[in-house]
Amino acid sequence: MAAAPPSVPASSRASCRGAARPSLLTATAASLGWRRGWERNPAVSLPTSSARLAPRALAVDSLKVDTLLDSVKWDDKGLAVAIAQNVDTGAILMQGFANKEALGKTISTRKATFFSRSRSSLWTKGETSMNFINVHDIFLDCDRDSIIYLGKPDGPTCHTGAETCYYTSVYDALQGSEATTQERLVTTTLYSLEDTISRRQEEIVTEGSGKPSWTKKLLLDSQLLCSKIREEAGELIQTLLENEDKSRTASEMADLLYHAMVLLRVKGVKMEEVFEKLRKRFSQSGIEEKSSRNKS
Amino acid sequence: MAAAPPSVPASSRASCRGAARPSLLTATAASLGWRRGWERNPAVSLPTSSARLAPRALAVDSLKVDTLLDSVKWDDKGLAVAIAQNVDTGAILMQGFANKEALGKTISTRKATFFSRSRSSLWTKGETSMNFINVHDIFLDCDRDSIIYLGKPDGPTCHTGAETCYYTSVYDALQGSEATTQERLVTTTLYSLEDTISRRQEEIVTEGSGKPSWTKKLLLDSQLLCSKIREEAGELIQTLLENEDKSRTASEMADLLYHAMVLLRVKGVKMEEVFEKLRKRFSQSGIEEKSSRNKS
Repeated sequence: MAAAPPSVPASSRASCRGAARPSLLTATAASLGWRRGWERNPAVSLPTSSARLAPRALAVDSLKVDTLLDSVKWDDKGLAVAIAQNVDTGAILMQGFANKEALGKTISTRKATFFSRSRSSLWTKGETSMNFINVHDIFLDCDRDSIIYLGKPDGPTCHTGAETCYYTSVYDALQGSEATTQERLVTTTLYSLEDTISRRQEEIVTEGSGKPSWTKKLLLDSQLLCSKIREEAGELIQTLLENEDKSRTASEMADLLYHAMVLLRVKGVKMEEVFEKLRKRFSQSGIEEKSSRNKS
Repeated sequence: MAAAPPSVPASSRASCRGAARPSLLTATAASLGWRRGWERNPAVSLPTSSARLAPRALAVDSLKVDTLLDSVKWDDKGLAVAIAQNVDTGAILMQGFANKEALGKTISTRKATFFSRSRSSLWTKGETSMNFINVHDIFLDCDRDSIIYLGKPDGPTCHTGAETCYYTSVYDALQGSEATTQERLVTTTLYSLEDTISRRQEEIVTEGSGKPSWTKKLLLDSQLLCSKIREEAGELIQTLLENEDKSRTASEMADLLYHAMVLLRVKGVKMEEVFEKLRKRFSQSGIEEKSSRNKS
């Protein structure tokens, strides 16, 4: 935790809106409070059955498992669609099929397991590549004929080495001629932004910084970047203190997020790592956290 | 954009780390720069074929579409799995099947369309409920037998009224007795955090604020919340300026994100709205943005 810099006069700490940061005493107490609340206070931790838990083999009641497996609407070949999704990023990693045995094995081992239609056999993703998908939770849809394995992959999921199996955009293929062969991973908004920021940084390296975009300016000027992050945090806060409308709050949060993500890029940190931190704080119960502190 | 409060003395603006916020002049210029870069600078905008575009019917080359449709590995029933995913949140909304006609219709209309196996007919999600899924991009997997419709839903996707069709956790069902009937939407890390913060706020209303968790304290005390957001922004910045390690940056970003999300909760704003803002800034080309400004 940062100490309050001595250059900030006491007067600027007086109010939330005007303050650079709270006084050292306040900041320390508050930080401890947050860490206590976050990591140790059971009131903040989630149910043990939730997706936030680190996956581990579960001692399951075999009768209950059988009942559950029987409740799935398997198709005429005894299969249901099984989709593997990254618990932190939401990326759809791959899609296969599961039969009763594959789902049962996934439930007990917490490694995403499918039924290979071509080989007519069970296969656990990663059994060859070692890139297992560690299952945190499993969801059934309303019709009980579609399954999500929500998990954390050990490495790239696709056999091509790509992070996910979905890297062919239909609209790219239709619009381009050579672009048809250009691969682009399926990404949702946050990761599209992250990709764009990464590309701007690569362009600085490959093309120099001539005619820089705003993102490039931020990437090249840490002082500017830092002052923008402070400013955007202040503007987000102002929407609360000045009771500005919700749309303004969403806009200011978008501003803050974008600028903070430029900083992450400069530091070489991915949003996935941030979410992993958040998930681990959630999943760690007070007892586990205390125990890990005693060991260290 | 917020003006710098007059209570902040000039000395505190001198350096990035120590500054409460940049001077009004700097902040204004920088903010304009950011908005220019973000919303108007074509260098920041993404390819027109990308997921960031607002969906609209596309004038497609029918020969190219036919070639693409023929390249999909349809199964012995002429079908492929089609998964609808929320472009902003990454939530898997539903899974159905598409045949050649359904995919072709989705490509041209940008409304997620499936083939109903039970009714043996085409159906566009939303044709009855009006909750269409507006498709921003379509992805094929490495085997070309699985499709993602990446889009924005007009409303809840599930026929039950749930946001997504996946609300039955296998581990909840196995662990609980009554919990079997307890529905819980599939959520990735960020949205699990958002849910937890929402629950804390509901608990304040239903149970009072006795024995408050850290999250509840923040929800109840705007001054504390604001000072924490400022502090966490400062600590994130410090990891850059002091060249702290990457893990520290990820931790501080997690801290900032959590506290900012508590503020969003107080304001009644969802992360999905923030991502929508980001996506719209991306998708708007300089020309479009200029045009919309001239009209307003």
